Amino acid sequence: MAMPSFMDAALEQARTAAAAGEVPVGCVIVRDGKVVARAGNRTVRDSDPTAHAELVAIRQAATALGSERLTECDLYVTLEPCAMCAGAVAFARIRRLYFGAYDPKGGAVENGVRFFSSPSCHHRPEIYGGIGEREASALLKHFFAARR
Amino acid sequence: MAMPSFMDAALEQARTAAAAGEVPVGCVIVRDGKVVARAGNRTVRDSDPTAHAELVAIRQAATALGSERLTECDLYVTLEPCAMCAGAVAFARIRRLYFGAYDPKGGAVENGVRFFSSPSCHHRPEIYGGIGEREASALLKHFFAARR
Repeated sequence: MAMPSFMDAALEQARTAAAAGEVPVGCVIVRDGKVVARAGNRTVRDSDPTAHAELVAIRQAATALGSERLTECDLYVTLEPCAMCAGAVAFARIRRLYFGAYDPKGGAVENGVRFFSSPSCHHRPEIYGGIGEREASALLKHFFAARR
Repeated sequence: MAMPSFMDAALEQARTAAAAGEVPVGCVIVRDGKVVARAGNRTVRDSDPTAHAELVAIRQAATALGSERLTECDLYVTLEPCAMCAGAVAFARIRRLYFGAYDPKGGAVENGVRFFSSPSCHHRPEIYGGIGEREASALLKHFFAARR
């Protein structure tokens, strides 16, 4: 599976989340060319403020691999991670971070606190933003427009 | 139970974590004068990089209260929260944050990215640092000294 396909898999998780009434953000984690975790936002379903797609996927991958260090793993997420999720990406030692839409309001990678550029961040993945941005962004816009 | 006693309960969780080989940080969440969640770090035991004391306690409290919003809840933690945990505190709408030791290396409240002062932070609790600092700090120092 080529790289864009992994973002497609993340977008699929975002669509599933939207159908369940969740903010449409999806994530997959890949190791050795295989998806080891996939998740959408679950904050409403789980009554869990920490259940962002990235956090759920990181926990899933760590369980699957039996390790709190996800070295050699790449994370694909449809929206720029927030500070909570960026922190989790660093603790998990994710190798590469691919994200879709930029998030000027709540993002913490290219926006906000730019966590990975802070001296208090102890692991910085390779970062690629704007991958699949158009569709990720359209999903979010459609979701919030429908809620007004 | 008076306020310092809640930090004592958090310190107790930190000691239990240390005994299990975890970095000694503990947390309790209080609502209406009652502890609704208590946890220590569990990253090693759970093979979960997100299992910091605060995150575990927030998830526990959200489950107990059946809501992703922990309004009216106060969080006591023995160490200054990192970016991941500070983000979770904001999403959970914690009312007051009391923390023990300051963490110049990994903290994100008074150190590092100072998350709650960022425009991308959408909820800022009342913050009280240095509560029970001496004991919280001694626990951490002793733990890391014993590991060398």
